[in-house]
Amino acid sequence: MTGIFDGTYARGAAAPLVAGRGWLGAMLEVEAALAAATAELGEIPGEAAAAIAAACMPERFDLEAIAAAAADHVTPVVPLVRELRAAVGDAVAPYVHCGATSQDVVDTAAMLLARRALETIDADVAAAVEAAARLADTNRATAMIGRTLLQPALPVSFGLRAAGWAAGLGGARADLVRIAETGLPVQMGGPVGSRSPALAGAVARALGLSAPALPWHTIRLAPARLAGALGTLTGVLAKIARDVTLLAQGEVGEAAEGGDGERGGSTAMAHKHNPVAAVSVLACAKRAPGLVATMLSAMEQEHERAAGAWQAEWGTLSELLRLAGSAAAWGRDLLEHLVIDPDRMRLNLERTSAAGAEQGAGLGAASELIDRALAGLAR
Amino acid sequence: MTGIFDGTYARGAAAPLVAGRGWLGAMLEVEAALAAATAELGEIPGEAAAAIAAACMPERFDLEAIAAAAADHVTPVVPLVRELRAAVGDAVAPYVHCGATSQDVVDTAAMLLARRALETIDADVAAAVEAAARLADTNRATAMIGRTLLQPALPVSFGLRAAGWAAGLGGARADLVRIAETGLPVQMGGPVGSRSPALAGAVARALGLSAPALPWHTIRLAPARLAGALGTLTGVLAKIARDVTLLAQGEVGEAAEGGDGERGGSTAMAHKHNPVAAVSVLACAKRAPGLVATMLSAMEQEHERAAGAWQAEWGTLSELLRLAGSAAAWGRDLLEHLVIDPDRMRLNLERTSAAGAEQGAGLGAASELIDRALAGLAR
Amino acid sequence: MTGIFDGTYARGAAAPLVAGRGWLGAMLEVEAALAAATAELGEIPGEAAAAIAAACMPERFDLEAIAAAAADHVTPVVPLVRELRAAVGDAVAPYVHCGATSQDVVDTAAMLLARRALETIDADVAAAVEAAARLADTNRATAMIGRTLLQPALPVSFGLRAAGWAAGLGGARADLVRIAETGLPVQMGGPVGSRSPALAGAVARALGLSAPALPWHTIRLAPARLAGALGTLTGVLAKIARDVTLLAQGEVGEAAEGGDGERGGSTAMAHKHNPVAAVSVLACAKRAPGLVATMLSAMEQEHERAAGAWQAEWGTLSELLRLAGSAAAWGRDLLEHLVIDPDRMRLNLERTSAAGAEQGAGLGAASELIDRALAGLAR
Amino acid sequence: MTGIFDGTYARGAAAPLVAGRGWLGAMLEVEAALAAATAELGEIPGEAAAAIAAACMPERFDLEAIAAAAADHVTPVVPLVRELRAAVGDAVAPYVHCGATSQDVVDTAAMLLARRALETIDADVAAAVEAAARLADTNRATAMIGRTLLQPALPVSFGLRAAGWAAGLGGARADLVRIAETGLPVQMGGPVGSRSPALAGAVARALGLSAPALPWHTIRLAPARLAGALGTLTGVLAKIARDVTLLAQGEVGEAAEGGDGERGGSTAMAHKHNPVAAVSVLACAKRAPGLVATMLSAMEQEHERAAGAWQAEWGTLSELLRLAGSAAAWGRDLLEHLVIDPDRMRLNLERTSAAGAEQGAGLGAASELIDRALAGLAR
Repeated sequence: MTGIFDGTYARGAAAPLVAGRGWLGAMLEVEAALAAATAELGEIPGEAAAAIAAACMPERFDLEAIAAAAADHVTPVVPLVRELRAAVGDAVAPYVHCGATSQDVVDTAAMLLARRALETIDADVAAAVEAAARLADTNRATAMIGRTLLQPALPVSFGLRAAGWAAGLGGARADLVRIAETGLPVQMGGPVGSRSPALAGAVARALGLSAPALPWHTIRLAPARLAGALGTLTGVLAKIARDVTLLAQGEVGEAAEGGDGERGGSTAMAHKHNPVAAVSVLACAKRAPGLVATMLSAMEQEHERAAGAWQAEWGTLSELLRLAGSAAAWGRDLLEHLVIDPDRMRLNLERTSAAGAEQGAGLGAASELIDRALAGLAR
Repeated sequence: MTGIFDGTYARGAAAPLVAGRGWLGAMLEVEAALAAATAELGEIPGEAAAAIAAACMPERFDLEAIAAAAADHVTPVVPLVRELRAAVGDAVAPYVHCGATSQDVVDTAAMLLARRALETIDADVAAAVEAAARLADTNRATAMIGRTLLQPALPVSFGLRAAGWAAGLGGARADLVRIAETGLPVQMGGPVGSRSPALAGAVARALGLSAPALPWHTIRLAPARLAGALGTLTGVLAKIARDVTLLAQGEVGEAAEGGDGERGGSTAMAHKHNPVAAVSVLACAKRAPGLVATMLSAMEQEHERAAGAWQAEWGTLSELLRLAGSAAAWGRDLLEHLVIDPDRMRLNLERTSAAGAEQGAGLGAASELIDRALAGLAR
Repeated sequence: MTGIFDGTYARGAAAPLVAGRGWLGAMLEVEAALAAATAELGEIPGEAAAAIAAACMPERFDLEAIAAAAADHVTPVVPLVRELRAAVGDAVAPYVHCGATSQDVVDTAAMLLARRALETIDADVAAAVEAAARLADTNRATAMIGRTLLQPALPVSFGLRAAGWAAGLGGARADLVRIAETGLPVQMGGPVGSRSPALAGAVARALGLSAPALPWHTIRLAPARLAGALGTLTGVLAKIARDVTLLAQGEVGEAAEGGDGERGGSTAMAHKHNPVAAVSVLACAKRAPGLVATMLSAMEQEHERAAGAWQAEWGTLSELLRLAGSAAAWGRDLLEHLVIDPDRMRLNLERTSAAGAEQGAGLGAASELIDRALAGLAR
Repeated sequence: MTGIFDGTYARGAAAPLVAGRGWLGAMLEVEAALAAATAELGEIPGEAAAAIAAACMPERFDLEAIAAAAADHVTPVVPLVRELRAAVGDAVAPYVHCGATSQDVVDTAAMLLARRALETIDADVAAAVEAAARLADTNRATAMIGRTLLQPALPVSFGLRAAGWAAGLGGARADLVRIAETGLPVQMGGPVGSRSPALAGAVARALGLSAPALPWHTIRLAPARLAGALGTLTGVLAKIARDVTLLAQGEVGEAAEGGDGERGGSTAMAHKHNPVAAVSVLACAKRAPGLVATMLSAMEQEHERAAGAWQAEWGTLSELLRLAGSAAAWGRDLLEHLVIDPDRMRLNLERTSAAGAEQGAGLGAASELIDRALAGLAR
């Protein structure tokens, strides 16, 4: 939508998945899987399913026309199914979208997109964890001044700080992995959510998603949990990025973003080197909590299909996946290229010490804590 | 971004303004106005300004390339200015973006987009007010059961309900009008916000925006107020749409959305007639509060330019304008085509009455209150 | 704080836990456990620990004085420790709060409060699940009109609706149970988070909390996950309460809140019977998403202790636990006393049918789905 | 509620107004004003009104009992009116709460509390503006390094920074003043919002509030606008507090909080001097956006009285007024006692300069901009 800011908001591989064509493709995959599953259950002929699958090629569909026609139905599935029926011809048309309702397609497509987005996010977060763990491991004895309420406090190991980053990312990642594995159920409830679960099971197998105990058309645990875990991830990333912006201050100078020469330049000040990745992480992360709140507010859904709350989820979840993906990609970049300055850390520590910090406090437990953190990640 | 849902989220004329090309165009208008203003102040030659203005044609710029290159700077203005300098040639290049910083261009472009978006939103809201006022005026004596906590209470005039809708929309509109008139200031502070206000004044005249007392690079009153007013507008629209979904329930049947035959159909249930406009209003409106919260959170901005909070505003404000615009367009549609059923209102009232409501309660003050509401709108 | 609304917001047993005296008591328990743990590790004499434990009696502390003095330190722990040292006398005073920092006490107390609040919330949610499951089991064949976008759609089993409620509550409960069991870690990092984990382990055993791999002073996974799970719970409760308000409408009349005669009366309309429990659930639940957003925003914490974000958590988490507890208690009340009217359900269904719904659609899969839902709860 | 943190969250004079007894007192004032107004309109005897006014003494009412009994009605007004009727005796009892509904009392009391809270907030903000203006005026030529994205950029006047603070606070204050003057309407609509406006006018005069064109029982412009303005105020305060925490960093050392010796001490580190006021401002301000979002979400209100959304406002608005009041009081304290170090500013500037900043950039426009800002405040 606001493509000119995509450099900030849409880094990483999640963004295209949740764009218009990504959604279109996922919806068509759901229609194909539905046809295959209904054929498997003997509800439609196998040849019809094959014909439908063959027709579900997103490049043959007119995204703009579907989006425009969707307005008449508050769902793009009505025009999508109409186009799909036209594509397969009159003989096969009755077997398209068989017994399903629009929400089945949108919800299942959302879970499919989410799974793929989580895969790419997970790859970036895993690399970020590894980079943070490396910083922790190699900086066990790198002393810096610990700062509380932004005031100098006592010496601390930079490696321990980085171990905390790694542990936080590792924890957020574990939440996403659990959701990816068991928390993304297909929706195949039919018009009022009473369809037999056999179909849902077959579609789930076809798409590699979970089979829910019940249709969840107005019981929105799955999107709410997903949103919460994405919000938690961006929160951890924001902590790391905030630390880097503070360590990179001119007066502090303990860390800087690496990367090539062009990055971080200013239109007005040639001498500046901006912490581009950290700022981008923060730009994305600050947008997440409001979106999570929207997803939670939208759980109040009426009867068998909500009038407004469900429809509010679509764009919100898309944006949340996009921004979390961008934050993860920028965060990985940040950690993989972070350059620290141990001499400056020591200098700042000595200066502070003169001003009162008890230098004597050792870094003794740091290495033990780092070992625990790194071991925890391996689990 | 999620174009397949644009039928719901992007109705009305505000959406294209805040899309990528809309932003690109607005930024180029700002560069042209800046050139004209610096020429007016004698800082650059008049011919340079004319050459720059001539080059500021959005269709000649490569939006995707700019967005991609923006990643290296957390702002699209760096590559935009580079392209613009290339377009005007070496002799004029030094006069491009003269003394300005990226934030000057992005913030001023945001205000320009906002002003245009508010114009289109205002047209839709004004029409919605008129439609609601008409419903109020023609239904002064249309009795219905008033409902509190969703329980039947006492008789009330439907016209009074509609007068409340009109008054709410009128009030939200007044806030937007005040902001459009005096609350959208240019930003022309230069690198650290200390540039002389003369330039800001000249740019403001050129673009039809306000001239601020001071640069507001990290004092974010203007975007915060704008966000609040948009949130208030969508809140009023949500109230109206919620009422309509409730009045349109099968068991109530007191109102229905008009419009052509196709609209509101279901993929699974041919007999259904869905309240498409009301649901669309609610889908947009439910997304606004979280976005407003993000804008308010983003007011905590560091020193002379924020590291993250400012950059979080861009997409958030764009989305808020887009959704408020869509909600307004759908709300206008809803009110202009609303069909009410006075007979059913009376029938429901009589039934309730048998169950205990004091029928005697007159509608006496309704007409007086409606007169006050309609008079208030005229002001 | 706003005690006059406590009937709505503070039902259930969680509210007093997170009130001022609840926090005071929990902080003293942490000080006592810290003393015991440092004695266990040989850092302080056993008799000192015993004397400290004996002095940690909340009724002997002046809550208002502590709250007032806390202002000078942005933490109540400074005056609390001062009072505690005065209580134990000069000889023992040096052993109080040994090697700990304010955040250790506040964070560990928060986790302790959360565990107890979750216990009481869990009891209410478990009862609510059971009540919903009973409704599901006994209404397998109770036909009602399914409603989508608040329009009549196709027949559905009320038991299936209730099974969805039960499944949603059961899922939200599972999240809270997991957090209560392993997601509430003590914080014992000392001034800058580098203290040896042995102490944390000993305090965790003493208090029945988890021992974290690392201090989490600025890695806020634990409070963020807790907040997310509370937000999800209130979201499910809101769905149920919304359904009840809609079913209880005069024109629908398919459900009503039971309970004694007084409840639900109006100051102005004697005939009214308001759905008090459902409205109270909604009043609490609507407040949760904004609080969750605050908790997520607050994850951006600087260095070794945040300047503002951490301190913002205290009241927010308290309020969230209080409101989730109240929503759970009201939700249990709602479900345990819900009265449904199968005759009215059938009547409404027949009326709708005349208007076009396909009556033929059976409830066939409902019983199978209900079995799955109930089995899922048993796991 | 969480009294132990009141030192942080409840500074200033607004907090007691919105506590339980404050609400009780305000509701009784509304009942007294309602009695006086109905007497003025000849609806009840003058002596009855006098007897009611005499009985409206909050100290005679049992807050806890009212709060507990409120649960049965989702409103404290039912038990309050019952107690009030008992207090005036049988003869006068029928004239109590005459023709009003619970919402009339709660909404009008909320506006009354808000007006008083705004008065005290305004006093603190006005003093904060004055302190910031003084800093601006006396530091026109105090050079410091301007910082963008937390990187050193170009020299800037500290006075100009302070002028920005003053302008931001002045703008936020203007919004609150406008709301206090014309944006706090009484609510006197009776059971379904159709009562004649004459009564509202009389009550408005009695209480010094605005008389609305229409009852606004489900058109929630007034609370939404109030919430937005409070969110904007806390956003500006957060900007200032964030700047102070950054300037007060050990490595920067350009500003410090003044105040007495005790304040800012640590339990663990005797040498520390924490920026207590700035951290307290941030702790309050970070909680506001989520609360504003709740108020906006709550605008979606059904028919003539909402089932849940209205009831969610009570605690949210109370908390928002309390936190905004505390942030304002702490912000005033911060600005009135801020100590800046011009020598350190110059030193940091020179060091940065060696690293590349163009020292030549003058502070020329700073004084002109400061004049404009200060003149703008005088208006």
